[in-house]
Amino acid sequence: MRVLVDEAERVATALLTAAGAPLAHARIQADSLVGAELRGHPSHGLQRLPRLLDRIERHLADPKARGVLSWRRPGSLHVDGQQGLGPVIAFAAIDTLLERVDDTGIALASVGNSNHLGMLALYVEAVARAGKICIALSTSEALVHPFGGTRAMLGTNPIAIGTPTGGEPFVLDLATSLVSMGKIHDHALRAAPLPKGWALDDEGQPTTNAERAKRGSIAPFGGAKGYGLGLALELLVASLVGSAFAPDVHGTLDSEHVANKGDVFIIIDPDHAQTSRMANYLDAIRLSPATDAERPVSVPGDGARRRRLAALEYGFGVNDNLWRSLTERLDQTSPPLHQELSS
Amino acid sequence: MRVLVDEAERVATALLTAAGAPLAHARIQADSLVGAELRGHPSHGLQRLPRLLDRIERHLADPKARGVLSWRRPGSLHVDGQQGLGPVIAFAAIDTLLERVDDTGIALASVGNSNHLGMLALYVEAVARAGKICIALSTSEALVHPFGGTRAMLGTNPIAIGTPTGGEPFVLDLATSLVSMGKIHDHALRAAPLPKGWALDDEGQPTTNAERAKRGSIAPFGGAKGYGLGLALELLVASLVGSAFAPDVHGTLDSEHVANKGDVFIIIDPDHAQTSRMANYLDAIRLSPATDAERPVSVPGDGARRRRLAALEYGFGVNDNLWRSLTERLDQTSPPLHQELSS
Repeated sequence: MRVLVDEAERVATALLTAAGAPLAHARIQADSLVGAELRGHPSHGLQRLPRLLDRIERHLADPKARGVLSWRRPGSLHVDGQQGLGPVIAFAAIDTLLERVDDTGIALASVGNSNHLGMLALYVEAVARAGKICIALSTSEALVHPFGGTRAMLGTNPIAIGTPTGGEPFVLDLATSLVSMGKIHDHALRAAPLPKGWALDDEGQPTTNAERAKRGSIAPFGGAKGYGLGLALELLVASLVGSAFAPDVHGTLDSEHVANKGDVFIIIDPDHAQTSRMANYLDAIRLSPATDAERPVSVPGDGARRRRLAALEYGFGVNDNLWRSLTERLDQTSPPLHQELSS
Repeated sequence: MRVLVDEAERVATALLTAAGAPLAHARIQADSLVGAELRGHPSHGLQRLPRLLDRIERHLADPKARGVLSWRRPGSLHVDGQQGLGPVIAFAAIDTLLERVDDTGIALASVGNSNHLGMLALYVEAVARAGKICIALSTSEALVHPFGGTRAMLGTNPIAIGTPTGGEPFVLDLATSLVSMGKIHDHALRAAPLPKGWALDDEGQPTTNAERAKRGSIAPFGGAKGYGLGLALELLVASLVGSAFAPDVHGTLDSEHVANKGDVFIIIDPDHAQTSRMANYLDAIRLSPATDAERPVSVPGDGARRRRLAALEYGFGVNDNLWRSLTERLDQTSPPLHQELSS
C-alpha cells in the first residue's frame, strides 16, 4: 500500500514516544527510517521499526540516552552511545564535530555502544549541506564471506561519502557486501527469490532462498577488491572505536543483545570547494555517452534524490503486513499518549 | 630476465642521480619503483623509470624539489609539491603528519603539483609500521568509464588503507578501476591480449587489444559501486587539493605536461589498537573454509609480503627490453658520476 510521508512520520514518531523516547529523539529516529523509505531503500526503512521497539521494550536500546561525548585529542572525539538510538547519538557526534572542524580542518568521531544507524547517506548528506566533506563508516554482525571463502566473517561494513558540490550534495552510500542484509530481509519479507550469486547458505552452498541466506552469508561486492575494502573498514572501525570484530558483533539484527558494533565519522573542511568546476564535471559525466542510449549515465545520489521528490508528493509503497502491524501496535499503545501526539 | 634487488636499486638510483636527483631523493624514488617490483606489481615498477627520466630531462619533474609544506589548520597540511618526485614529496608530507598526529589524533595532507606516487601500499605500510592508521588517495588522467558509460571520465583513483595489527601491518591497495592503467601498459609492453571486460576502445567498443585500450577506457571495478567509490574519491581529492578533475589531468603518463593531479594522506592514531584481537581475527579469516580447498582464504597484503620475501632472496623478473634500455641508458650517462656511484 501507499503511505504519505507525514502519516509515516506520525506513526513512527508516536510509536517511539509511546515506547519512551523523548519527542526530539523520536523525530530523529523516525526521520531516519522514513528518509530511507523516501529514497527507495525500504531495507533501512520502517521494517526496522518493530525490532527497534522490541529492543527498547527489552531495555537493549535506551531511547532517552544522549551519549557521553569526550574529546580525546583536539581532532578526535570519542562517543559512548549508552545504547541510545543510532541516529540520535550519531547526530550528536556530528554536531560536535561540525563545531570543531573549522578550527582543526579535520575531526573524527568514534562511536561505540550505539544502535543501528540506518541509512548512512542521510548523515553525509546533512554534513555536505553544511558545506563539509563527510566519511561515515559502520560495522555489523558477520554477514559477508571473504573472497574465496564460504563462511560469514565480515560485516556488511558500509561506507558513505558526501561532498558539497555547489548544487545538490554528492552522496555515495554503499555496503561492501554485494547487497545489504536489509535487502535480503526485504526479499524474505516479500518471499521473493534472490538473484543468483548474491548469497551462500549456512553450509557454504549458493542459494536463492532469502531465509537460508539470512542464516548463511552474502558475497562481497567487486570480488577480491570489495572484500579487501570491507575488511579494511572492519579493522579501521574496530581500531578506532574498540568495538567488536564481526564474528563477535550482536545487536543490530536481533532483539537479544546490546549493540557492540562501531561507527566512525570523519568530517573535513574542503579548502578548495571549487564548487562550480565540480558541478560542471558532474554534469559532463551525466551527459557522457551511455552504453544504452535509453539509460543515461547517472551520478550516485541522483536516483535517491529523484525518488525522494516523488515520494514527498505522492507517498511511498510499504508492505501491507508491515504497515498493518505498525498501526495496530500504535492502537494498542496507551491512549492518552497516542491521542496527545495525534492531535 | 631475473634481476637482484641490489642491482635494480643500484641502476635506478644511478640513473636518477645522473639525471640530477640528490642521492637521498634518488634512493626514495628507486625504493618506490623496486618496492613495487618486489611485491609483484611491475605496473608500478621499473617500467615507469624511462618516462620519469624523460620528464626530468624536460624539466617537467624537478628531482631536487622538497615541496613547500604549510599547516592551514592544526590538522590540515597543504603541500605544494613543486613538481618534485612523487615519493619524495609524499614521504615529506607523511613525516610531518606523523609528528603532528599524536597531538591532534588525526591529520590530513593535501598534496598538489607532485609527480606519480607509484604504489600506494608502500606509504600506508610504512605508516602502519609506525603504529598509525593511514588512508592514501591519488587521482590520475581520465582512464575509467562510468558504470553504464563508454567514455573515460574518471581517474583510476586508487585507495590504500594500512592499519597496525600487532603482527605484520594490514595493507590494502586497490585502484577503483577493474585493473590499473599500469597493468594495461604492462600488457601492451608484452603484447599480451587483455581479458574480456577490462576495457573499451576509443569508440566505446569492448576490446582485448592493450594498445587500443590505452586510447580508450578501463571498466570500474565492482560495477555501479566501484564507479561510485572512484567518483567519490575523485571529488574528495579535488576538493581538498584544488587539483584538476580527471578529464583535465595530465602528467602522470606523458612526457609533455607538468603533473596536476592530487594526492591525499590521512593519518589517524588508533586509540584502540587491540592488536592481539586483530591478529586473531585475521588468522580466523585465513583459516575459514575456502571455496577451493587448494586456495586458502587470504588477507590483503599476504601475497605481496610473500612475493617480497622471495624476491629479496632470488630477485625478480624484468622485461628483457626494459632492463637492456635502462642499463644502456646508464652506460651513456656521464662516466664520472656513473663510476662514482657504482664504486
